Amino acid sequence: MTANKAWTLASYPSGWVTEANFRLIESPAPSPKDGEVLVKNLWLSLDPYMRGRMSQQKSYVKGVEVGEVMTGETAGEVVESRHAGFKAGDKVTAPSGWQLYCCLKGELLTKVDASKAPLSYFLGCLGMPGRTAYFGMKEICAPKPGDTVVVSAASGAVGSVVGQLAKAWGCRAVGIAGGKEKCGYAVKELGFDACVDYKAGNLFDGLKAACPNGVDAYFENVGGEILDTVLRLMNLRSRITICGLISDYNAAEPYGVKMFRSILVNRIKMQGMIVFDWFERYPEANQALLELVVAGKLKYRESVLEGIENAPKGLIGLLKGQNFGKQLIKLA
Amino acid sequence: MTANKAWTLASYPSGWVTEANFRLIESPAPSPKDGEVLVKNLWLSLDPYMRGRMSQQKSYVKGVEVGEVMTGETAGEVVESRHAGFKAGDKVTAPSGWQLYCCLKGELLTKVDASKAPLSYFLGCLGMPGRTAYFGMKEICAPKPGDTVVVSAASGAVGSVVGQLAKAWGCRAVGIAGGKEKCGYAVKELGFDACVDYKAGNLFDGLKAACPNGVDAYFENVGGEILDTVLRLMNLRSRITICGLISDYNAAEPYGVKMFRSILVNRIKMQGMIVFDWFERYPEANQALLELVVAGKLKYRESVLEGIENAPKGLIGLLKGQNFGKQLIKLA
Repeated sequence: MTANKAWTLASYPSGWVTEANFRLIESPAPSPKDGEVLVKNLWLSLDPYMRGRMSQQKSYVKGVEVGEVMTGETAGEVVESRHAGFKAGDKVTAPSGWQLYCCLKGELLTKVDASKAPLSYFLGCLGMPGRTAYFGMKEICAPKPGDTVVVSAASGAVGSVVGQLAKAWGCRAVGIAGGKEKCGYAVKELGFDACVDYKAGNLFDGLKAACPNGVDAYFENVGGEILDTVLRLMNLRSRITICGLISDYNAAEPYGVKMFRSILVNRIKMQGMIVFDWFERYPEANQALLELVVAGKLKYRESVLEGIENAPKGLIGLLKGQNFGKQLIKLA
Repeated sequence: MTANKAWTLASYPSGWVTEANFRLIESPAPSPKDGEVLVKNLWLSLDPYMRGRMSQQKSYVKGVEVGEVMTGETAGEVVESRHAGFKAGDKVTAPSGWQLYCCLKGELLTKVDASKAPLSYFLGCLGMPGRTAYFGMKEICAPKPGDTVVVSAASGAVGSVVGQLAKAWGCRAVGIAGGKEKCGYAVKELGFDACVDYKAGNLFDGLKAACPNGVDAYFENVGGEILDTVLRLMNLRSRITICGLISDYNAAEPYGVKMFRSILVNRIKMQGMIVFDWFERYPEANQALLELVVAGKLKYRESVLEGIENAPKGLIGLLKGQNFGKQLIKLA
């Protein structure tokens, strides 16, 4: 009998997440019922939204209950299928949660073509983060060629795709990231026109120099003081995609955004987003992103920790901005 | 020779406006040159945006310089015309500023039909505030029948039109205003379904009770804590028109808005507006609003001070929320 390992939620964090908020459970791997598929997970994606699930506050969807397996998406291989659409050996992405094995209804799985890109990419630039960047850019930021597009968390899973889409669509791409290494990577590896280090001390002056014509579109992953700073540089009729507010997720009290006046005076359009809203258009995004990867125009970096035991550590590091690239756990 | 009186800006206020920020100047009334029209102003409109003009901060348009006549719109009568489109006796609205007489190019004047509504209405529900309500509602709040629409400064020149448009369009209209009298007026005279007194102590509970199905559209005239409170009640995919932030205009430091999380989680669309952006569509708004006035579906209250000498006092009272209805100065 195959052994499963799963991380469950042990307690709700107040403030920063700690390893004590999780509990590792071992049990036999389950067997699929009719219509189900048993997946062996090879990669677990760690994402900032997970902090929101470790909470009883109202959010997009219900949070994780204490004792339940932590929410998460995996990429893996079908071991046994009792669903007509899948057979052993198929590569899939799945909402398995933080565990090695999972039985899911076939309808919840997405078959992926791992011949064109590494399997793990389907959790990143070709998965949820990539689609998030695509729809947030296309439907809210809506940049025209020549526009200046700014994105925070520029070296992250979503931000790196945002900047490369901006370049592919003829825009000036300016990133915000923490530290010289991430900023250098955004410019040298990903092709951003500039990337400003918010840890260096003067974000406003740095951004102003990097955006001589102001900011036409801003893709926000961070919130807080960074949002307030970018608001000072937004142009008339500019757009802001509110995709994430990671700076608030662990704060005892959310940051108060002071530059609302810019929204009024510049007639800024600001909109919150969650990628699920475009579920029916996922194939459009998947194809556009895959074409860019195949053409070498969408580069991608992963930050990999080995072994399911490291999942809590990986999430904590991600929430503190310690990862560099899409955070993954290699499960096997 | 006719004597003109004009209020000029004497100094920029820091914080609250005081009467010392203005200076009353007397001079002979000017004579029109070719293409110009001499207007005798009968009504001066006082509006919150004027606080923004008394500043050197970047805004929609250049601020008033010290020594210049204060910006403002008037309704009046043509005394002498050297423009083919106007003749003596015509009723017009004009960007005259705070003064009794003004010579302006004919192109800057708007002829109005004062047979269908009182002349002063063309500075209020049939003028800039009415059009602001119309386009902010139609183009950003975009309510569907059955939606709950909330508006702050509900008894004011813009807010009172917003609420009555909401009713005319089949929505639930809920106001926020300061004091029992204004709230009673919004419900009993204007037909709002409810109006919550923010001075009564618990705005959140009051609004929650008044909006049992949450808030689908919010028309913001005030900002600050009121915005933070309404954000807690916004529904999924709701809309917010940022039309004014009067609570910030006199604050030494702007209020920090904490509830950004609601924008993200609820995928709220928020947009700043200024009515000039729809200049080409003014006739559409003018006609729709006039039809509602004539049909008795758009009621309107004025707060009138007599004499140009009272203009600074009128603006100061307006900025402190002491007016009740559209603030006007009766000039003659």
